[in-house]
Amino acid sequence: MKDLIKHEYFIRKALEEAHKASEKGEVPVGVVIVIDNKIIARAHNLTQTLNDVTAHAEILAITSASNFLNGKYLKDCTMYVTLEPCVMCAGALYWSQIKQLVFCAFDFKRGYSQHGNLLHPKTNVISGICETESSTLLKEFFRSKRK
Amino acid sequence: MKDLIKHEYFIRKALEEAHKASEKGEVPVGVVIVIDNKIIARAHNLTQTLNDVTAHAEILAITSASNFLNGKYLKDCTMYVTLEPCVMCAGALYWSQIKQLVFCAFDFKRGYSQHGNLLHPKTNVISGICETESSTLLKEFFRSKRK
Repeated sequence: MKDLIKHEYFIRKALEEAHKASEKGEVPVGVVIVIDNKIIARAHNLTQTLNDVTAHAEILAITSASNFLNGKYLKDCTMYVTLEPCVMCAGALYWSQIKQLVFCAFDFKRGYSQHGNLLHPKTNVISGICETESSTLLKEFFRSKRK
Repeated sequence: MKDLIKHEYFIRKALEEAHKASEKGEVPVGVVIVIDNKIIARAHNLTQTLNDVTAHAEILAITSASNFLNGKYLKDCTMYVTLEPCVMCAGALYWSQIKQLVFCAFDFKRGYSQHGNLLHPKTNVISGICETESSTLLKEFFRSKRK
């Protein structure tokens, strides 16, 4: 229960990042990376703004967290992200050897789990935290884009 | 035959980048991205230098090419890379919708093809160009590291 409250707290911080993306016309995905209950990196999707397919929230946050830690491995970190990571981001998480991944909603089209488990064997995965909030945000974004 | 000569020419440019990585103590992988027979991006692995697992040559080159083209899709580009891309880089190539991928040697441990075809259906793949040169460079690098 204590862990669930903690996960929801940090997922809500990731959702704040996703809202920032949405306000910029970016697909609303947000991330925070946490170590010892402290946020060390925040990021949201910036692929349109930066004209760069690699500028997913997860990639930007991994770079930022590594910079903060002055080390490239995130072995004691948890990533909170509002959507299941894609193959690219799962591949980056694999290299980072991140301790834990917590996400809201599965992405049945582009999520990494469509290709088996691409994460590091040491990475613990929790899904389904604030799933409705994330899905609603994404659905509203794509609905407004179609208008 | 003409295409083979062209591919070898650009793969040798990618091998030059791989040598630069090796000189810095980085795993020797190099990339060039080409459009209309012109190199628009060059990069080599910088994960140690930048303390960042996402700083693979392919990711750095995609960002650089997108910046050059002022657009995030590489639909008319060919990436030449000295080693089969990993899952992360294949995922990035998927998003870029790159036209063609040419690489030297397969990576039977960490190559994307161990997980099926993660690339975009429109991406044409050619492998085995200058395979020995790339494999020798990698083997020598790891041999010198073990000393």
